[in-house]
Amino acid sequence: MGTGFDLGTFLLAFASALIAAKLFGELAERVGQPAVLGDLLAGIVLGPSVLGLVPLTAGILLVAEIGVILLLFEVGLETDLSELLRVGLPALAVALAGMLLPFLGGFFLTRLLGYPALTAIFVGAALTATSIGITARILSDLKVLSTREGQIILGAAVADDVLGLVVLAVVSRVAESGTVEITTVLRTAGLSVGFLALALAVGMPLGKRLIRIVGGANVRGVLVAASVAFACLIALAAKRAGSAEIVGAFAAGLVLARTNRRHDIENAVKPIVDIFAPIFFVYVGAQVDVAFLNPLVAENRAALLLALALTVVGFLGKFAAGFCAWGGVRRSFIGAGMVPRGEVGLIFAQIGKDTGALPERVFVAVVLAVFATTFLAPPLLKALRPNPKSEIRNPKSS
Amino acid sequence: MGTGFDLGTFLLAFASALIAAKLFGELAERVGQPAVLGDLLAGIVLGPSVLGLVPLTAGILLVAEIGVILLLFEVGLETDLSELLRVGLPALAVALAGMLLPFLGGFFLTRLLGYPALTAIFVGAALTATSIGITARILSDLKVLSTREGQIILGAAVADDVLGLVVLAVVSRVAESGTVEITTVLRTAGLSVGFLALALAVGMPLGKRLIRIVGGANVRGVLVAASVAFACLIALAAKRAGSAEIVGAFAAGLVLARTNRRHDIENAVKPIVDIFAPIFFVYVGAQVDVAFLNPLVAENRAALLLALALTVVGFLGKFAAGFCAWGGVRRSFIGAGMVPRGEVGLIFAQIGKDTGALPERVFVAVVLAVFATTFLAPPLLKALRPNPKSEIRNPKSS
Repeated sequence: MGTGFDLGTFLLAFASALIAAKLFGELAERVGQPAVLGDLLAGIVLGPSVLGLVPLTAGILLVAEIGVILLLFEVGLETDLSELLRVGLPALAVALAGMLLPFLGGFFLTRLLGYPALTAIFVGAALTATSIGITARILSDLKVLSTREGQIILGAAVADDVLGLVVLAVVSRVAESGTVEITTVLRTAGLSVGFLALALAVGMPLGKRLIRIVGGANVRGVLVAASVAFACLIALAAKRAGSAEIVGAFAAGLVLARTNRRHDIENAVKPIVDIFAPIFFVYVGAQVDVAFLNPLVAENRAALLLALALTVVGFLGKFAAGFCAWGGVRRSFIGAGMVPRGEVGLIFAQIGKDTGALPERVFVAVVLAVFATTFLAPPLLKALRPNPKSEIRNPKSS
Repeated sequence: MGTGFDLGTFLLAFASALIAAKLFGELAERVGQPAVLGDLLAGIVLGPSVLGLVPLTAGILLVAEIGVILLLFEVGLETDLSELLRVGLPALAVALAGMLLPFLGGFFLTRLLGYPALTAIFVGAALTATSIGITARILSDLKVLSTREGQIILGAAVADDVLGLVVLAVVSRVAESGTVEITTVLRTAGLSVGFLALALAVGMPLGKRLIRIVGGANVRGVLVAASVAFACLIALAAKRAGSAEIVGAFAAGLVLARTNRRHDIENAVKPIVDIFAPIFFVYVGAQVDVAFLNPLVAENRAALLLALALTVVGFLGKFAAGFCAWGGVRRSFIGAGMVPRGEVGLIFAQIGKDTGALPERVFVAVVLAVFATTFLAPPLLKALRPNPKSEIRNPKSS
């Protein structure tokens, strides 16, 4: 049973994770919150520390990993690189400030509390990336996606995601080597950026050729099978090149997004992501031991304090970054739009836990901070929503 | 690495299995053969005995098992129970004769060669079920689906599948207990039929209510997540009730096929089946050790002879069953249409191997016989195709 090979145990865990994730996700959306918070809550409730319906077995982990790889592949498919270039400099300024401030805040806070540098680096890194998915969804609900503010937020979130994946590769490498050396950091950053550039340069013609070959085939399901195989292979190549699997999956998505079958691939990948990605977030939530959340236990207080402090610096760092934008925009709204971390922060927390860089209580603190920043964003954005008159006329973004 | 949960090993195996399955599947279809033969060949080539790209690890096995459960769920979704009732008695006669003759032939042949009764039962059972999927596809290619012959073949294949799942539950139970006792056989057959009846009776209103609840939800992917969770839970219930997981998955499909969201569920499940079901057939193929296929090695000859003999009885038993039909139809065509075994026979072989009922060489013989019967059907059906004038006017089947 403990190995997770028992099919019955797996089916029960898989089915209950899906049902609870959608149930809590629906409740989250009904109160104006993103569905990923529901997945996370479902994981905490189903996990070993409460109901024990989702055990932390290798089988569930494998399915969770397939889920997060396909999720990043889908995010890549939905990302339009030209969007980033259109809002250009203000978005880049917001993205850079929005990564640097929370990173430094998280790093120094964790050091202050006496944790080693490696832990502090992972905590800082987990606070850097804004969630494109959550941000886009909230902006779309508020009908401000096509305002100048909306475009800057989205552009910054995309830049942030690409840079965040570089940061992830760097911190994973640092965690594996166990020491913080500037040469390791620079080499991994170089490798990661180089891998992305190479994957895009080599991948674009390769992806187009793949789609052409696949177009001539009659056998059932060949487009989705070829796309998923492509994503897995690029993910594997990224890992072998010293980067992370999800960087490769994201790059594979960016590449196939430039082909003429983009929408067919998206439609086929969507239901697969629908059933596997929630398993990842449930798995993350299932690792939160609710016993650690009790403030009456003395040992928990440091971690809970850390969670609160990380929420504050995580929030203030991104909010302040909004004020780096220019061009007659409501900068507080842009800052608020950068706050939700969602899936990307959770992926960082998970990898930090897996590599041993994040001790269990710090892992819980990071998950709580990611949860809280994501939770704060929707009401704040509603309150700060800019006047629709600032809408820009852009035929492509309508 | 050996546990199969190394992500890198898994990604490489998954991607190469998908690519090879679609490549060989396409080649198979180009020469007029069903794609599942391509999946199987891909497995033999990628498996440990040739290239070693798909190791027989627990991770691959888990994904293969998810694949076959979702495949049977999809077959259930596509099955129209009323079709069976429409062609009624002649189809049932063909189905029953087509199960009995190959079972008896396979059983006595295997006993004659000196294998124990348990092995002989599994070999016989593996020859009983006609593949609905392959049959429907060939008939549709030949444009004879709506002829009376086509309807009888399909009806018999559906009956065959339902009865085959009962046989599967019985032989699995017998293999688990290790002895052949008439009380075990009768109890398991009763349980399996009872489970199917109960699942349909209780499932129908439950499935309709589930679809209504899901219809009111806004969160992304809730229909596909709820359907897959439903299939997993019914599969688990089937196993707990003493039947097999795939019986439950099939029943779940039959139930959801009667809801008004049938087509949405089918469309969402299709790409998931497209990438997971081939992994099952590749996994089956990967277990065929090509060293056993060499007739120059003395120990292999008995198994190869068995494979040839099983192909002959597997073919003749189904072909003869066609002559049980009546009503002015071309009975040789009906017999030929019942011949392809495909996926169902392979599922039997796999379970027989897992439970230890089929020794390795007998497993290979059964896989070869399934392969050969499936291979023989398309050219034979083309040669025996009935005159289109026998087409029946039936508005529902056009």
